[in-house]
Amino acid sequence: MSDAPSPAATARRLIRGLDRATLATALAGLPHPRESPVAWPYASLVLAATDPEGHPLLLLSDLAEHTKNLKQDSRASLLFDGTAGRDDPLTGPRVTVIGMAMPVADELLLARFTRRHPGAAAYAGFGDFHLYRLTMMRAHLVAGFGRIDWIAAEDLATPAAPALAGAEADIIAHMNQDHAEALDLYAERIAGQKNNGEWRMTGIDPEGFDLRRGGCIARLDFRASVYDAEGARAELVRLAKLARGSL
Amino acid sequence: MSDAPSPAATARRLIRGLDRATLATALAGLPHPRESPVAWPYASLVLAATDPEGHPLLLLSDLAEHTKNLKQDSRASLLFDGTAGRDDPLTGPRVTVIGMAMPVADELLLARFTRRHPGAAAYAGFGDFHLYRLTMMRAHLVAGFGRIDWIAAEDLATPAAPALAGAEADIIAHMNQDHAEALDLYAERIAGQKNNGEWRMTGIDPEGFDLRRGGCIARLDFRASVYDAEGARAELVRLAKLARGSL
Repeated sequence: MSDAPSPAATARRLIRGLDRATLATALAGLPHPRESPVAWPYASLVLAATDPEGHPLLLLSDLAEHTKNLKQDSRASLLFDGTAGRDDPLTGPRVTVIGMAMPVADELLLARFTRRHPGAAAYAGFGDFHLYRLTMMRAHLVAGFGRIDWIAAEDLATPAAPALAGAEADIIAHMNQDHAEALDLYAERIAGQKNNGEWRMTGIDPEGFDLRRGGCIARLDFRASVYDAEGARAELVRLAKLARGSL
Repeated sequence: MSDAPSPAATARRLIRGLDRATLATALAGLPHPRESPVAWPYASLVLAATDPEGHPLLLLSDLAEHTKNLKQDSRASLLFDGTAGRDDPLTGPRVTVIGMAMPVADELLLARFTRRHPGAAAYAGFGDFHLYRLTMMRAHLVAGFGRIDWIAAEDLATPAAPALAGAEADIIAHMNQDHAEALDLYAERIAGQKNNGEWRMTGIDPEGFDLRRGGCIARLDFRASVYDAEGARAELVRLAKLARGSL
């Protein structure tokens, strides 16, 4: 077995680990010059989170062009671009996720989004903002120059782990209140972040957990998938020991 | 008159000043679930340069999905995202440029692209790589939270300046050979770059010029548009004096 992550694992990590993406939608209201009714491809910036299974979540204003587009045609894709900071971005990993982006009225998912994006809490309650979920159908991964794979839906989402999802808010509150030092160690010693102190946990899922400090984010991977609070606790303890150099 | 740049000037500067973008095309070969022939919106990463008038240039492999898409339907858009480094990207500027992306066989434009992206010179001559120009039809600027404008084609491109375009290669060679110190001063003292030394000029156009150092880029604006080598020289001298603190 190779130590390198599989294409599907690389894609999942990009989708889970990045907090912004470019959304491609079909532009409403700009007809084709040759009078075709087909809409124009339209690229726009969005903040992104994921639902517990890994499907992307977006919080969109009804006033935005991309939202008008989705109301007319829910087909969309999202580019998660992990190439920032490279001299040649084409050597870096990015994934295009293809799916249907539909409104989803779910307070738990909205809470997951606003934990990931604390700044969004200021407008998440406005009447013209709605949460959308892009249900992943396929993804196209470019892991570097010439390292290209199509990935099927069943390899993109992780299996539902209702016990973990139900415990997520409590785990996060506990870690942020009682284990701030461990969060900083995860970010600095394992994720290699240079910004010290005051890291907060924003989400946890079967494959890992997410941290934020201001505009900086970090994702930590579990060694194996966890499905409940006890499994998560064991991995969080193991990673804290690893960070402290005890392993 | 306000000192703030107009929406059109902000859009032009994003398009000229960023060297990568997200391309949205209509995905060939993935039919709509309801059997519509309409293609899916597809977002992908591209390196970008501009032609002398400011229309985006892309160097695309025939093997890439986005190129297959464009061969079937040349309608496209490009997101130029100037929000990197902000704690909340939604407060930052980005522009979606809408247009037709068509192959353009032009050695001078290809040279402009490879000056902007020296790494691309390694594959620019491959038979399966071709230069595309996205002829801008419209753009949608989001200059920050709620600062939103549609911009017409005539405000996006700059007027042709054939005397300047014809002198561009000579100006760049001269600056890189004889005025390396001035290039570093432009980058460090005017553009505020933190990487010192060895900046190279990669392009010059009526509104300003572009610099690169490894993976870092910087763009300097002229005070007023220039249309030939003499006008460019005067502005380059003025900016060098400004950078040296002589103005």
